[in-house]
Amino acid sequence: MKRVYLDNAAATKMDPRVRETMKPYFVGEFGNAGGLYQEGRRAKKTLDDARESIARNLGARAEEIIFTSGGTESDNLAIFGVADAVRLEFCLGTSFHIITTKFEHHAVLEPVKQLEKKGFNVTYLDVGSEGIINPNDVRTALRPETILVTIMYANNEIGTIQPIREISKIIKEYRTQKHVAISSSSGGEIAKWPYFHTDACQASGYLDTNVNNLGVDLMTINGSKIYGPKGIGLLYRRMGTKIKPMIYGGNQEMRLRAGTENISLIVGLAKAIKIVQEARITETKRLTSLRDYFIFELQKRIPKVVLNGHATKRLPNNINVSILDIEGESLLLYCDAKGISFSTGSACTSDSLDPSHVILALGKPYEFAHSSMRFTLGRDTTKEDIDYVLAKLPTIVERLRVISPIKIDINAKSISHPEAFAGKLKGKAKGRNYK
Amino acid sequence: MKRVYLDNAAATKMDPRVRETMKPYFVGEFGNAGGLYQEGRRAKKTLDDARESIARNLGARAEEIIFTSGGTESDNLAIFGVADAVRLEFCLGTSFHIITTKFEHHAVLEPVKQLEKKGFNVTYLDVGSEGIINPNDVRTALRPETILVTIMYANNEIGTIQPIREISKIIKEYRTQKHVAISSSSGGEIAKWPYFHTDACQASGYLDTNVNNLGVDLMTINGSKIYGPKGIGLLYRRMGTKIKPMIYGGNQEMRLRAGTENISLIVGLAKAIKIVQEARITETKRLTSLRDYFIFELQKRIPKVVLNGHATKRLPNNINVSILDIEGESLLLYCDAKGISFSTGSACTSDSLDPSHVILALGKPYEFAHSSMRFTLGRDTTKEDIDYVLAKLPTIVERLRVISPIKIDINAKSISHPEAFAGKLKGKAKGRNYK
Repeated sequence: MKRVYLDNAAATKMDPRVRETMKPYFVGEFGNAGGLYQEGRRAKKTLDDARESIARNLGARAEEIIFTSGGTESDNLAIFGVADAVRLEFCLGTSFHIITTKFEHHAVLEPVKQLEKKGFNVTYLDVGSEGIINPNDVRTALRPETILVTIMYANNEIGTIQPIREISKIIKEYRTQKHVAISSSSGGEIAKWPYFHTDACQASGYLDTNVNNLGVDLMTINGSKIYGPKGIGLLYRRMGTKIKPMIYGGNQEMRLRAGTENISLIVGLAKAIKIVQEARITETKRLTSLRDYFIFELQKRIPKVVLNGHATKRLPNNINVSILDIEGESLLLYCDAKGISFSTGSACTSDSLDPSHVILALGKPYEFAHSSMRFTLGRDTTKEDIDYVLAKLPTIVERLRVISPIKIDINAKSISHPEAFAGKLKGKAKGRNYK
Repeated sequence: MKRVYLDNAAATKMDPRVRETMKPYFVGEFGNAGGLYQEGRRAKKTLDDARESIARNLGARAEEIIFTSGGTESDNLAIFGVADAVRLEFCLGTSFHIITTKFEHHAVLEPVKQLEKKGFNVTYLDVGSEGIINPNDVRTALRPETILVTIMYANNEIGTIQPIREISKIIKEYRTQKHVAISSSSGGEIAKWPYFHTDACQASGYLDTNVNNLGVDLMTINGSKIYGPKGIGLLYRRMGTKIKPMIYGGNQEMRLRAGTENISLIVGLAKAIKIVQEARITETKRLTSLRDYFIFELQKRIPKVVLNGHATKRLPNNINVSILDIEGESLLLYCDAKGISFSTGSACTSDSLDPSHVILALGKPYEFAHSSMRFTLGRDTTKEDIDYVLAKLPTIVERLRVISPIKIDINAKSISHPEAFAGKLKGKAKGRNYK
């Protein structure tokens, strides 16, 4: 049966060229890059070359690239790394401050919450109804004790693109002012903070990831979202940015991430980054037109379909819609049976009991989150695929709506079941308790 | 030119059967195990099967296996995980206590040192001149506030095997006594501690790793040391053992390790564990006789060769000798030119400026560490390989000794350059400063 895979934001198929590049490093060239003998020196050379290649692609220096086990680890390293370093730097009674957004990936939100538990103050910026941060909100939130601003480049659920350049300018201005204000005192050093981190996992396949254009101090990239291998990612760290490691042991990765270097995956990541960088402009063009066609036709053919997030300031491969009055999970399973794969922000998805925090951050009612569907196109997606989905979807939606007890007003503005989020009423969604 | 690779403790060549098992999961089966659709469900099934298979091989339950990015991360997770959880459990003014040894891998020593900086008390057990822990020393070191004992199963440099079963019995006895003593008070819960962690990275290719036979609560295994993939490892965690995650984000790995599951590497690890478990008894027999032949002939053919670590209570593939009056690095490079790869505990190895802490822990002089060589045999090692090394080595050693200014007494018992370790004299070793 035909399969149309539209969950490229969750996982991309590895590029066969990436696999080919990795191949020699499994069985043949397996040396430990720490070895002084030939096998080790060759591994070290391969590692250095991969690091160089990635650095070139990001406009960075080789020693600014730290390899990790993936996007989640990179985000954690950026956040815990900065927090840990700053605590060592200033043994003050100060309670440090972090700025982030309400709709970050869990790999950012969860470490931030851990720090909050340990006494850090956190500002969670509103994302507006279109899912785009207002840079002025960052300006307002900045405080002398702010050590880190972490704002994603493009959102993983709704694909909205954040004004990273504007935000980095504001942060730089703030640092300069701070420096002038306190340079005479002994605390001049603190003017290096706040650092600016961005999670570019979803963005890096389509947007400019030159770290100097973006003006970021720390940036996360993940192999598995860009047709590279799973289990490998990187944290870009601008020279001078003070972070502490999370994983201690050997002296690998500029002493910031211990563990034997995973040459095969690193080589694969380097290749994947090179390929997406070369293809991104053409791919963006192609997918943008497919995306807009898909959104237009969906809304034309099915009533009560609401686009989540800004219509154009979004990734070229992201379509996130709430198809009202049906449950994401039901639609997902019916579509799966017809050969269509996508994901949902419903509360009933595999491991999470909460409905999408991203859709809720847009200020939309609970039911919008529960019926939100994310279709993410990829390199293999064709117009035929989209037409196939457009042909199947209306009938399935119609059938599900017939049996649905929910009839929500498409203009609903407020959260319709606030008690579900207050943690007071243990409401049930499909037999599961809300957290 | 012929290559004889004798650094299997640093990296093993991937078993072609492992590579074959992994193959489908790169390009074809790339689904995210979190997806509810077919591709995702298949990935989840593959993940579950791999976890089941590993659990069976270790005598564990599936939910006791936490996949990580390798041995270093597993060790860190065990140590920081226990420390973090216990701090949350007991908001006491108590300063908690950890027991480890002087010759652990850096992946254990470094996290422990970090905790020491944060106020934990640490006992570093002596390892004796043979490199084997005396279980009674563990008994003596245990205190009511001990939360963790972490002792490696087999040492990575000298291969000596530690009495894990005896130690786990002592710890269990201690917990029982503690429980009886305090069960009436409100602190009864603390009788669950200390936990017992072992780093089995080097051992798992040759020794029994059934967690119930060993009686451990936490155990580290690494793919790259057992002919599996690099970049994947696991932490066995006995049910009820309280640990906190290090990496936060999604709900993967029983909420103890966030990040998209790396199906291909996980499948490879499962296969590698299965293969080494099946082969370990035969391989142990074969390599033990090769090892003993190698040691005997080395000492016969070259004067002033001292075996480091117990002669028989060591891994079947480990030969660690100090070839006195020469520098490890020089021998390594000469041998490399003749096609022989191994590693050295010399101060001048790639990333480390310190001579082997393991050889020093045996109470041997500095020069013994500086001239220590580790040859680790592997599945491909033949008697012909060993004979080749035995044929080349004496001439090279003789030549190096002619130009060496060092003439050390083979019976030297004390550290001959204590100042080099006191950090007071900035002595030079091959043009590099000691740390």
